[in-house]
Order: sequence, then C-alpha cells, then structure tokens
Amino acid sequence: MNIKPLGDRVVIKVLESEETTKSGIVLPGTAKEKPMQGEILAVGSGEIVDGKKVPLELKVGDRVIYSKYAGTEVKMDGAEYLILRQNDVLAIVE
Amino acid sequence: MNIKPLGDRVVIKVLESEETTKSGIVLPGTAKEKPMQGEILAVGSGEIVDGKKVPLELKVGDRVIYSKYAGTEVKMDGAEYLILRQNDVLAIVE
Amino acid sequence: MNIKPLGDRVVIKVLESEETTKSGIVLPGTAKEKPMQGEILAVGSGEIVDGKKVPLELKVGDRVIYSKYAGTEVKMDGAEYLILRQNDVLAIVE
Amino acid sequence: MNIKPLGDRVVIKVLESEETTKSGIVLPGTAKEKPMQGEILAVGSGEIVDGKKVPLELKVGDRVIYSKYAGTEVKMDGAEYLILRQNDVLAIVE
Amino acid sequence: MNIKPLGDRVVIKVLESEETTKSGIVLPGTAKEKPMQGEILAVGSGEIVDGKKVPLELKVGDRVIYSKYAGTEVKMDGAEYLILRQNDVLAIVE
Amino acid sequence: MNIKPLGDRVVIKVLESEETTKSGIVLPGTAKEKPMQGEILAVGSGEIVDGKKVPLELKVGDRVIYSKYAGTEVKMDGAEYLILRQNDVLAIVE
Amino acid sequence: MNIKPLGDRVVIKVLESEETTKSGIVLPGTAKEKPMQGEILAVGSGEIVDGKKVPLELKVGDRVIYSKYAGTEVKMDGAEYLILRQNDVLAIVE
Repeated sequence: MNIKPLGDRVVIKVLESEETTKSGIVLPGTAKEKPMQGEILAVGSGEIVDGKKVPLELKVGDRVIYSKYAGTEVKMDGAEYLILRQNDVLAIVE
Repeated sequence: MNIKPLGDRVVIKVLESEETTKSGIVLPGTAKEKPMQGEILAVGSGEIVDGKKVPLELKVGDRVIYSKYAGTEVKMDGAEYLILRQNDVLAIVE
Repeated sequence: MNIKPLGDRVVIKVLESEETTKSGIVLPGTAKEKPMQGEILAVGSGEIVDGKKVPLELKVGDRVIYSKYAGTEVKMDGAEYLILRQNDVLAIVE
Repeated sequence: MNIKPLGDRVVIKVLESEETTKSGIVLPGTAKEKPMQGEILAVGSGEIVDGKKVPLELKVGDRVIYSKYAGTEVKMDGAEYLILRQNDVLAIVE
Repeated sequence: MNIKPLGDRVVIKVLESEETTKSGIVLPGTAKEKPMQGEILAVGSGEIVDGKKVPLELKVGDRVIYSKYAGTEVKMDGAEYLILRQNDVLAIVE
Repeated sequence: MNIKPLGDRVVIKVLESEETTKSGIVLPGTAKEKPMQGEILAVGSGEIVDGKKVPLELKVGDRVIYSKYAGTEVKMDGAEYLILRQNDVLAIVE
Repeated sequence: MNIKPLGDRVVIKVLESEETTKSGIVLPGTAKEKPMQGEILAVGSGEIVDGKKVPLELKVGDRVIYSKYAGTEVKMDGAEYLILRQNDVLAIVE
C-alpha cells in the first residue's frame, strides 16, 4: 500500500465482522453495525507533544479496536481504508 | 484476556448490580440502571503529561467506580468489556 | 469508609439542611433545595499541574460548601456519598 | 466570618444599591437590577499558574465591582455571601 | 477617576459618535449604532502569560477602537464607563 | 493612516473585486460576494507565544487573501478598513 | 503560481476525480462527491509549537489526501486553489 499518514495518524484496513446474525440471516451492508476492528497498514511520523516528536505506540501489523465512526474513509485503487488518529484507537488485540 | 489498552485507557469487566428491584421483581436488561462498578483487567502504558509519560494510578485487579455512560463497550469472544480513560474512573473501592 | 478517590477528587458525606420551611411545613425529599454542605471523607492523591503532582488543599474532616449539582452520587452499603473534583468545592467552613 | 474560599476564589459581602427608583418608588427585591458592588471578606490561598502558586491581587476590605450573575450565593447563619473567582472581579473602587 | 481595573483589564470612557444621521435627523439613544471609540482612563496591573506578568500595551490617555458589545458597562457617581480586557481593544488611534 | 493595531492584529484596506458579473450586469453592493483580498496598512507589535513576543510574518504593503467574514470593519474619516488577526490571513499574493 | 500561504498552511491544486459513475453516466458538478486528492503547490513557513517554529512535513509536489470540506477555496487568475492547514491533510499518496 502506498499511503503515508501524516503526524499522529494511522492507516487501517477494516476487518469485516461476520455478516450473519444469530438467527442465521445474512445482513446487507447497511443493517450491520459498523465493524470496529482493523489492522494497521501504515503509521505516521509521530505526534508533537510539548515541542518534542513522540513516535506512535502503534506499529504496522497491529490488530486494533477503534472508536466507531472515528476517522475518514478513503478509497484507493478499489480498496477501502480508514485514516484515523492514534488517539481514536482504543486498544491492541493480541 | 488479550486486549492491551492504549495510553491512559483501562479495560474493565463490568460487575453486574443485582437484577432484582426492592419489590422483588426481576428486571430485564434495559430497565436496570447501568452498573457503575467494575474490575480492572488491563491498563495502558500511561498518560503523556507535559511531555513525560506518567504511569497510571490504576492497576490490574482494582475494583473501581466509574462515570455512568463513560467509555466504549467492546465484545470479544462472547464476553463484554468496557474501555475507558483513567480520568473517567472516579474512585477505587477497597 | 472504603472509597479511595482518584487524582483531584474527594469523597463527601452530604450534610442535610433542615427539612422544615419557614412556615413550619416539613418538606418531602424532592421539594427541598439540594443541600450544599458536606464533610470530606476521603481525598485523592493530588492533581497533576504542569507535570508535577500537587497535593490537595482539602483534608479529611473539612466541612465544605460545594457547587450545587457538581459531582457524582454514589451508593455504597446503603449509604450515599458524593464524589467531586476539588475544583467544585467553593470554600471550607471553619 | 468563618468561610475560607479555595484557590483563586474570594468571598464577597454584597453592597446593596439604593432601593428607590428615580421617580421615588421603593422597589421590592426582584424588580431591582442585581447589585454589582461588594466588599471582600476573605480571599483564597492563590491561583496555580504554570505550576506556581500566585497570591491573589485582591485583599480583605477591598471594595470591588464584579460581573453581574458571576459566582455562587451562599447563606450562612442568616447572612448572604457571594463566592466568586478573582477573575470575575472587574475592578477595585478606591 | 477612582476605579482600578484588575489584571489585563482597562477602563474606558466611551467617546460618543455624532448623533445625527446623514439625512440630518437626530437619533434617540437606542436607534444609534453603539459607539466603538473610547479613551483609556485606567489600566490593570498586567496579564499573566506563561507564569510571567506582562504589562499592558495600552496606557492612560490612549484613544482606542474596541469590539462592539465587548466589556461591561459600569455606572459610578453618575458617569458611565466600560471595563474590558485589553484583548477586546482592536487598535490605538493616533 | 493613523490606526495602530494591537498585538497580533493587522489593518487591511479591502481591495474591491470587479463589480460586474460574467453576463455583464453591474451588481449593487449586497448581491456581490464579499471581497477577500486586501492590502496591509499597519501591523501590530506581535503575538505572545509561550511567553515570547513573536513579530508578525506580515508587513505593510503585503497584498493578502483573508477568510471571508473574518475581522471587524472600521470606518475612519470616511474610509473603511478591516482589522483582523494575522491568523485570519490565509496567504500573501506575490 | 504566486500565492505564499501563512504559517502552517499549504496551497493545493485539487485533482479532479473521474466524472463518470459506475453505470457510465457523466455527472454534472454538484452531483459528484467532492474530490479529496490534490497536489501541494506551496507551503507556509511552518507552525509555531511551544515557541519553536517547526517546518512543515509537506513539500511542494506532494500528492495528498485531505479532509472533505476542509480549507478555503480561492480563485486566482481563473484557476481555483484550496488553502488549508497541514493538520487537515490526512496522508501523502506515494
């Protein structure tokens, strides 16, 4: 992938949650809750905190949980990514 | 548990309050007040305050009282957790 | 009491104001103005100001006046407490 | 008086403005404009600015003009006071 | 004049703009646009910026343009003044 | 011109955009889009950033593009000026 | 081009997205989603962070993705540009 996020931003590939409800019905796109897990594809150069550049805690390959509706969706060459700030990432799933 | 919260966040297992009202009626999920006590399952790496990383006051195993509606609910492998910032934790119950 | 408030928070036992109006009628709970005096039962570890931990000005046993509606009410073992930030305490009554 | 304000707060005794309009009619309490002058009865320990405690500019006995509606009214032993932040005091009248 | 403004505030004597419209009609008080020029009568002790007291740029006698509706009107001994923050003063007219 | 702006403010003479639409109709004042270009007539003494006075980037004579609706219009001796903060100036046109 | 952006701003030439929908219909201007890619034409002198001037991460020629609706559109000599803050640029496309 060739997107380099700026500052404290990361690029995430959204991991689709299962598309079937408990009762076994396959849901079309809009009826599903927005997925909240993703994989880090690229990280920015860091965040400036009190005049010093602090590298991000996140790294490429991390599987993360992020705030629903956070960030900006971006389409590039047919694929869809999410660009958000590290601060909107809640946790790393190990 | 395998969720590692970021920065000044903690992961909480919500402690259910009793599900019976004073008059003895068992309440279904939505009629109850949201519980406000939980147990700390994981803590983030700390909060950056004025350029220095300050470790969190909370530690794994603490039983805490937290602000109603604070944080983000997360479902993982069937279980339900709450990720919130240390600042939304009001007190430790000893 | 076994609640340890976090950071710049304090735990207060609310001091009930008299429950009788000037004309001598005893008021039920909701018709009264909310009481605004309390006694400090526990204080947090301090407030971080510009990277340094500053101990709180308030101490256990202080009788205080606080902002109406400030803080969070908490029920523990039948008793009712108020957890609020030191900044919502207006003055100490000596 | 036995109220000790916290931090950058002061306690003020409100100075009543004349209760008669230009046409000579004595006004009941609610029809008057709120008075905006008072006398300082007590001052807090100071304001923390950039990590240093700065003593207040105001001192006991100062006659001041303050922002209408600023602060919190407090009743103690029948008397009425106003607790407000030094920042809501506009000027000293000499 | 005997008003000493606090901190970064100044006291202004409002300079009345002409009370006649272009067509020669004298306007009563409320129909005029609020005047925006005044003369500095008193200045505060300065503004605390990053822990240091910075004296004000304005001095007594300056004729200034200020933001319409900024500040607080004050009546003292029959005269009317305006107390506002230096930051609400836009420019000095020389 | 004799207006000296305060702090990080500048005085701008608005440069009128052409008053004719593409179809050749001359527009009266209100139907035009507000012009967004101007010439710097005076600059303030600078901006205080973290306790140090930083001189402004703009200088007298610069032709600038500024945010529509930013600043305050001022009439002096029949002429009309705009006083705005340097931060509301988007770019210098060279 | 002769626009020099101020501070942490950049000037962008908007790169038009394709004007045809998947079903092959050419869309008139307003029905299209606003394009979100552009090329950096000019960069400001930098951002002041904690009293130090930090040069911008972006440089002339970078192809970037930016927040929809961010910035200010500017028309100069018939061409149309976008002036926005570096912070509204999400990522560089390489």
